Amino acid sequence: MGLESLRINGLRLKYAMEEMSKIGAIAGGGVQRLSLSDEDKEARDLFVHWLKELNLDITIDEIGNVFGKRPGRYPDLPPVMSGSHLDSQPKGGRFDGTLGVLGALEVFRTIEENNIETNRTLTIVNWTNEEGTRFSPVMSGSGVWVGALEKEWMYNRTDTEGKRFVNELIRIGYRGNVPSRSSEIHSYFEYHIEQGPILEKACKTIGVPKGIVGIHCSDIYIKGETNHVGPTPMEGRHNALCAAAEMILKVDELPAKMGGNMVATSGEIHNRPNSRNTIPDDVHFTIDMRAWEDDLIQKGFEDLKNSFEEIAQKRGCPVRIEETLSVPHAEFDQKLVQNVFRVSENLGYPGQHMLSGAVHDAGYITQIAPAAMIFVPSIGGRSHVEIEDTTWTDCEAGANVLLHCMLQSASVL
Amino acid sequence: MGLESLRINGLRLKYAMEEMSKIGAIAGGGVQRLSLSDEDKEARDLFVHWLKELNLDITIDEIGNVFGKRPGRYPDLPPVMSGSHLDSQPKGGRFDGTLGVLGALEVFRTIEENNIETNRTLTIVNWTNEEGTRFSPVMSGSGVWVGALEKEWMYNRTDTEGKRFVNELIRIGYRGNVPSRSSEIHSYFEYHIEQGPILEKACKTIGVPKGIVGIHCSDIYIKGETNHVGPTPMEGRHNALCAAAEMILKVDELPAKMGGNMVATSGEIHNRPNSRNTIPDDVHFTIDMRAWEDDLIQKGFEDLKNSFEEIAQKRGCPVRIEETLSVPHAEFDQKLVQNVFRVSENLGYPGQHMLSGAVHDAGYITQIAPAAMIFVPSIGGRSHVEIEDTTWTDCEAGANVLLHCMLQSASVL
Repeated sequence: MGLESLRINGLRLKYAMEEMSKIGAIAGGGVQRLSLSDEDKEARDLFVHWLKELNLDITIDEIGNVFGKRPGRYPDLPPVMSGSHLDSQPKGGRFDGTLGVLGALEVFRTIEENNIETNRTLTIVNWTNEEGTRFSPVMSGSGVWVGALEKEWMYNRTDTEGKRFVNELIRIGYRGNVPSRSSEIHSYFEYHIEQGPILEKACKTIGVPKGIVGIHCSDIYIKGETNHVGPTPMEGRHNALCAAAEMILKVDELPAKMGGNMVATSGEIHNRPNSRNTIPDDVHFTIDMRAWEDDLIQKGFEDLKNSFEEIAQKRGCPVRIEETLSVPHAEFDQKLVQNVFRVSENLGYPGQHMLSGAVHDAGYITQIAPAAMIFVPSIGGRSHVEIEDTTWTDCEAGANVLLHCMLQSASVL
Repeated sequence: MGLESLRINGLRLKYAMEEMSKIGAIAGGGVQRLSLSDEDKEARDLFVHWLKELNLDITIDEIGNVFGKRPGRYPDLPPVMSGSHLDSQPKGGRFDGTLGVLGALEVFRTIEENNIETNRTLTIVNWTNEEGTRFSPVMSGSGVWVGALEKEWMYNRTDTEGKRFVNELIRIGYRGNVPSRSSEIHSYFEYHIEQGPILEKACKTIGVPKGIVGIHCSDIYIKGETNHVGPTPMEGRHNALCAAAEMILKVDELPAKMGGNMVATSGEIHNRPNSRNTIPDDVHFTIDMRAWEDDLIQKGFEDLKNSFEEIAQKRGCPVRIEETLSVPHAEFDQKLVQNVFRVSENLGYPGQHMLSGAVHDAGYITQIAPAAMIFVPSIGGRSHVEIEDTTWTDCEAGANVLLHCMLQSASVL
């Protein structure tokens, strides 16, 4: 059998997806597998169990990234790598991240059952904490691995209950002893759902992003003065929640003001003491800004800082602005991108050049190696929500593209 | 010894306050004794223990109100009652409510140790859930007792974790078997800290409110559409948190628009899924409006409803508005108010006529009996905050006023 006619097993991929979806399953068809939670541990355990079935060489690094290697004919050559993440949003979907990990797993299973020997080693990876919901910032596993984030700094990040990242990593048994430091890799492919409406609207099966937009995350802390809502006159109040409300609207208005393809969102807010009859004095909210043009983000952030200072001054509510993450836009390797597109078309799947508005571990990988991504359509463009969905036909298509991209790269000497 | 020269024991009151403050003590000198929590139970247990030391006749009603009776010479005459509440805000102060309960306790102790026989029975009370923070609405114990709130409706109210009021009441062992139904009372006095800046500014020791402002509470629920913050264009978003931000600012602007002495506040907000990289689709926030003029509140509420509908329409985020509580302003009994003022002046404490901007159980009591309140200054006008404070000298003064008001009323045949 010529390798061109090789296909993954769509039913086996569906079965693996369904098994994984049971872990942290929530109403509405979604999952809740927050990073380093019990559910994350259970998902990792199942993943490791599947890697062992394939006799892969498993390593876990200090930040909890899990790697499985299938040696090639020339084990000294840099490997071809693929993977994504198993952690989820608080009310996340079944496909986000998981499809990339289990799609790669299905590729490994297909290669193994066909006894295919590749020139290069193949590596599958599950990155730690891509979502960044429980512990910010996002993509901390790949960020540490490529050297963009400090391991010790990440270890000391805390969740809203004050639990330290490193303690939770140890608690679930996934702080490995291998240093988290990137080794040379030949090429990296990440298979993912699109999480946006473009492919569905264009009636295309495979999205081929040329890169990932830049992302800037910050945390805003506002101090007010708490008091009883009844006897305290309106005049002279320092209401931190009102200051936050004004600022959140500035964030929402920013993209229209800046132009370009920018998006900006405040997704998270913590209000204290959060009592209906007490003036709030302690508010923390988040900002997420994204654009292809890095300077647009920087200008936008400066604009927000100025507005926030004015609001803080006016309301007598001092504001502290903490930049949590700033990653410039990432361009994928042009040759790999062309390969993904060509492989898709050869397999009979219409491809679509695009940009990724979501960030992915693949963005960090571009800092050390050629990388590319493979997208499949999100029904209704919905993601980060329980009803996130992709047809099994599309899931199978994306995994076939991944299979042939990996085989091609792994054959290169 | 003539009764006029009788004084409470200030040190004993201070000691009782300090003992009670240890229950649910939090950093900054405050307390957290949310209604029907373990801390509320502990506070109630200590209170009951103290009532037993005085050999009072203790009853606990179906809503958890705790009464202690000291029979008078003519036990068939309606009693003189005093009390307040032992539950607190999430980050509350030591004095709010507690001073009124333990001030009354000190009055009972003083009367007991001096073997004073009063014509009328004296009753001390600790009302259930005055704060309304964990279970809304506020003042549910006294509200049910006077018939303004339905017991069964209150039983089914839930906290943010979905726990039912009645189950928590049973859990802490304070669902009594006595029907919660007001009996005839001669007069009701509630001793409380002012919780505002008026007495301090006026350099007066005793505040004598002529009544309590009206209060209107509502809960606002907004539905949006969640999605990933990256690939989802700004155009066409239905961001429930942005809709809430606009509405919260409308609440803040309302008093200036309406005139009068209105105050309006959004103190509590719950944002879901509350993830930094997900558009919020489910927001709940609260409104608390107060004014002496009941029609101002009604007009203000209509105005808000119109604004909210416009905002909901514009952002494609349907809004549901639930009125949780509407209590008209309460006028205290003019004779009792005059008595409080005269007693204060006779004891050498400068008195100040005023309004209560905070609501109190005394407001509900006006619906069934003559009532009045006694205020002492709040340092810096601060309340509902850990650093809430009142000097021990002022605490003693207020308790002496309460002592003589109660003795006077209890002597009336």
